[in-house]
Amino acid sequence: MELLKRKIQTEGKIVDGRIIQVSNFLNHQLDIPLFNEMGKEFQRRFADTPITKILTIETSGIAIACIAAQYFNSVPVVFAKKHAGRNMDEDVYESSVYSYTKDTEYPIRVAKEFINTHDKILIIDDFLASGNAVMGLIDLVKQSGAEIVGIGIVIEKSFQGGRELIEKDGYHLESLAVIDAIEDGQVTFRDYI
Amino acid sequence: MELLKRKIQTEGKIVDGRIIQVSNFLNHQLDIPLFNEMGKEFQRRFADTPITKILTIETSGIAIACIAAQYFNSVPVVFAKKHAGRNMDEDVYESSVYSYTKDTEYPIRVAKEFINTHDKILIIDDFLASGNAVMGLIDLVKQSGAEIVGIGIVIEKSFQGGRELIEKDGYHLESLAVIDAIEDGQVTFRDYI
Repeated sequence: MELLKRKIQTEGKIVDGRIIQVSNFLNHQLDIPLFNEMGKEFQRRFADTPITKILTIETSGIAIACIAAQYFNSVPVVFAKKHAGRNMDEDVYESSVYSYTKDTEYPIRVAKEFINTHDKILIIDDFLASGNAVMGLIDLVKQSGAEIVGIGIVIEKSFQGGRELIEKDGYHLESLAVIDAIEDGQVTFRDYI
Repeated sequence: MELLKRKIQTEGKIVDGRIIQVSNFLNHQLDIPLFNEMGKEFQRRFADTPITKILTIETSGIAIACIAAQYFNSVPVVFAKKHAGRNMDEDVYESSVYSYTKDTEYPIRVAKEFINTHDKILIIDDFLASGNAVMGLIDLVKQSGAEIVGIGIVIEKSFQGGRELIEKDGYHLESLAVIDAIEDGQVTFRDYI
């Protein structure tokens, strides 16, 4: 998606030579017109897929999923919680995700009542790197018996193994921008995406 | 807002006789058509107000703010972070919020680069009760020198003092539904809102 790649190139910041920081438009300040274009593009990529619900994970996935949902007949969005408070229902599906950036394992949870056997789930998230967060979401959906019909990612880093992990199980994965390398402060994108 | 009040009445759950849980459409599963109607209603309430940015706080405020932004010329949304990771910029405005539901004080932070002196900020959040979260957001904006032009809340509980705290400082506060009492498992709304 050219608009997104341009945005990453002009406004992304490379930290420690390997982390791409996109707080300016994706993670902290949110660029709503860009999000609308991303939503349209997700719709184009999953045009023939019947979808009843979008599943994402707090925090950064939520805004992307909600704007995108508007292009999928405004299906409900459900987000898995990382920081469940006292109000969290007891009756949850739970999985565990290892975070490289924070070097900790954390639980993710979704209330059982919000995913049911008949749902056709599109998973949406902001980043795909090692694939841990997405695999955690896949695990939650598997527990519910619902079907995963697609996985939509905004920015994929192709060199950390996430895609292999996901496609091994046969899922339809679409990323709006694929980064093949971050070297010498330069981002190299996969051309044809 | 009648649609919202009906939703609270039919799908809200009252916990411990005093907490209203709206996970079904506002906090965990997100009802996108409802969010669009809420966005339009916020626009109607702040129609004559020049707004350059919407500020909210993770997690539940983000989806509401992003959908609403579409009715305010798609201005950028910035969310204050509660759980800042290693990626968080050092250069932040910081405040502190006391949470009754979790009985802890937690820091909230926003990167300085995303709020500047010339901004006219609409604050949006899901709940107003004691007003602590909103007062924290007001504090962040004050530090930046930007102007707060309005505060939009989805559900206000009028009996916990938040409105008095906010209006004392002269801010324009609009709530889409105002709950005057929760008694015997029944929610009493303020009629005219």
